[in-house]
Amino acid sequence: MKAEIINVGNEVLLGYVLNENASFLSKRLASLGIELMYHTVVGDQSGSISSAFRQARDRVELIILTGGLGTTADDLTKEVICKEAGIPLRKCVKWEKHLEKLYEKVGIELEEKRRRQAYVPEGAVLIPNENGTAPGIIIELQDKMIVLLPGPPEELKPMVEQTVMPYLQRKSSAGIIKTRVLRVLGLGEATLEERIARLIDIEGNPRVVLMAQSTEVHVYITAHGDNQTLVEEMIQERENRIKEKLASFVYGVDEETLEDVVARFLFQGGYTLAAAESCTGGLLADKLTNVPGSSNYFLRGIVCYSNEAKIELLKVPRETLDTMGAVSEETARIMADNIRSTAAADFGISITGYAGPSDEPLEPVGLVYIGLSTPEGVYCQRCNFWGDRRSIKEQAAVYALNLLRLYFLGFVD
Amino acid sequence: MKAEIINVGNEVLLGYVLNENASFLSKRLASLGIELMYHTVVGDQSGSISSAFRQARDRVELIILTGGLGTTADDLTKEVICKEAGIPLRKCVKWEKHLEKLYEKVGIELEEKRRRQAYVPEGAVLIPNENGTAPGIIIELQDKMIVLLPGPPEELKPMVEQTVMPYLQRKSSAGIIKTRVLRVLGLGEATLEERIARLIDIEGNPRVVLMAQSTEVHVYITAHGDNQTLVEEMIQERENRIKEKLASFVYGVDEETLEDVVARFLFQGGYTLAAAESCTGGLLADKLTNVPGSSNYFLRGIVCYSNEAKIELLKVPRETLDTMGAVSEETARIMADNIRSTAAADFGISITGYAGPSDEPLEPVGLVYIGLSTPEGVYCQRCNFWGDRRSIKEQAAVYALNLLRLYFLGFVD
Repeated sequence: MKAEIINVGNEVLLGYVLNENASFLSKRLASLGIELMYHTVVGDQSGSISSAFRQARDRVELIILTGGLGTTADDLTKEVICKEAGIPLRKCVKWEKHLEKLYEKVGIELEEKRRRQAYVPEGAVLIPNENGTAPGIIIELQDKMIVLLPGPPEELKPMVEQTVMPYLQRKSSAGIIKTRVLRVLGLGEATLEERIARLIDIEGNPRVVLMAQSTEVHVYITAHGDNQTLVEEMIQERENRIKEKLASFVYGVDEETLEDVVARFLFQGGYTLAAAESCTGGLLADKLTNVPGSSNYFLRGIVCYSNEAKIELLKVPRETLDTMGAVSEETARIMADNIRSTAAADFGISITGYAGPSDEPLEPVGLVYIGLSTPEGVYCQRCNFWGDRRSIKEQAAVYALNLLRLYFLGFVD
Repeated sequence: MKAEIINVGNEVLLGYVLNENASFLSKRLASLGIELMYHTVVGDQSGSISSAFRQARDRVELIILTGGLGTTADDLTKEVICKEAGIPLRKCVKWEKHLEKLYEKVGIELEEKRRRQAYVPEGAVLIPNENGTAPGIIIELQDKMIVLLPGPPEELKPMVEQTVMPYLQRKSSAGIIKTRVLRVLGLGEATLEERIARLIDIEGNPRVVLMAQSTEVHVYITAHGDNQTLVEEMIQERENRIKEKLASFVYGVDEETLEDVVARFLFQGGYTLAAAESCTGGLLADKLTNVPGSSNYFLRGIVCYSNEAKIELLKVPRETLDTMGAVSEETARIMADNIRSTAAADFGISITGYAGPSDEPLEPVGLVYIGLSTPEGVYCQRCNFWGDRRSIKEQAAVYALNLLRLYFLGFVD
């Protein structure tokens, strides 16, 4: 099955938002062995939507349109596609009731323009939307399949996972294709490429390619064949060989985030954690608390942005701050130790560093100390990060999580 | 002048990298008044490149292709376009010498496949590339202009700024174009549209359009003309009328973030701030500390994820937690008040709520209380947010910042 993605919306066309949906959908389609031929991005005008849709209909079997399902006057995707496909719109009473409930909850009137979202093409399959008011729509048209999805990624993604993927899987006949992603932290792309040079194969089956991300590198292993077990085995065999070369540099697989991995270690051991942050300003706690259920192991965080906060809340002696400095191994160790003891947690993590930008030419922007206090003692890692303020905060939070992961693996001493 | 961007490359088509180049180019073209009609993304195959190029040639005057100028076998953009346009490739001796120097410096042999980058279309303009080995290329073809650029954003961006933009500016006859963005928070897209219905004009000059973002809506005002002052005046006049209708719902202009605006109020008043967060888990402090110089006013943050932390660090009475609950107006008020007093700050903000997901069907996921303690008293806002865990965290942190902004404007009582 050949496919095209059409993103509708001036905000994407004019570059005001990154086309996150296209990248997400591409990956998900590839995992089903559906061959994506084109992305097209068009503005909100009905003429542009019609013309892109007609063109796609001439060259692919599966057309996925995103955006233009909202309640404002320039949301026209559904109407244009129905007109092009010659399908009338009918009110779906069930969705209308759903909308009535939603709007009642927030005390907003369900006006006519909002009620428009309850109209669906005759004979279409509705895709439930947990995070918004527009339903997704699947239309089957002779030998073509058309999928309409709302533009906001937080609405689109769960709809794709829960409804569109299972639907397409039943329809697609591409044989079996599987992809596994190994997530690598702590090695640059070039070094990683050197280490596993013989296992990389951009043409083979399995196909192995590297994709550099902002703070990490992903290794994609993709295999295809007719037999589920065989395909799994091909991937597993290559994965094992790569992991052998990379050892603890591989922190996770597929969609697993670093905070998920750390969460699993904490949860399984019944351990608790507290965090004391200076330069990351709360980003580490934010990441930790993105994991559902994190209140089971994350007790508290302290963002000690001022020296006073370090002294009062974390009992860092004023002499240490005066003689060693707020950004020093000593301060990091005391912060980690004291957040652990005051929170009565099993582990304490601390971060202190220079995120920049700085007016003082001698300040070493990017220098960060990460402390880890454990039942066996306190560890400290000195890091030099590159980039702007946000990027340094990001790297520092990621490496702090990674230090805890490496500790659980027995690699910290 | 109408334009189309064609991104060539499997890594973009298959979603392994976000299409950052398209978003960047779109914005730069818009600033010149060049009307971008389509983005198209195709794979590396010569057939796909040809077909996308032919289509673009039929519908626009300016075609910008990115990617496929490298040294590997699947880098075919230059060759395909020359074939389609009927232009021969000629060796550019100057670029070849440049390559020889570059490769000699790093001790790599200038093999034939690398020498391929020194071949340029006859009569084309070369675009120097400071960060890579592939030159960019501008081809003028009767009434069409074709620009070829390398795929890596760190190569493409300076080439666009230094060479392509001045070149296009000379060629484009759109006069002066200016855009201003008004950032609106607290009104949905539909309500906003209603309020300023008569000031929205997607065809006019100034052109006024709405763009919904995840937690806010942006109003774009774009005007063009021959005279700088006149264009500025047109924008200013429309901006004033829109602001009159929206009052404090407009929090910022152009690239200004909400945390920038709050930072300005705090900085100008010489005020200090501390934050106590429960469900946002540090996200508010993270946002506040993204602003360079935030250590001047942000003293400390406490992430009190457990009840013990609320009791010990913020002196919330256990009875309040037991009788009113951790998610309650009372708790939010006490948290805000006590973080303000213990930090000896001018202002204290607190957030407590349910970010979900929840196994308990009665837990009102999305219910959040925001507290603000000021020299004049304590305020509390009750909010109902939608969406998943991350989205609820995001909205809660944004609305907390906004509450402080509204206080400074005198709208909180």
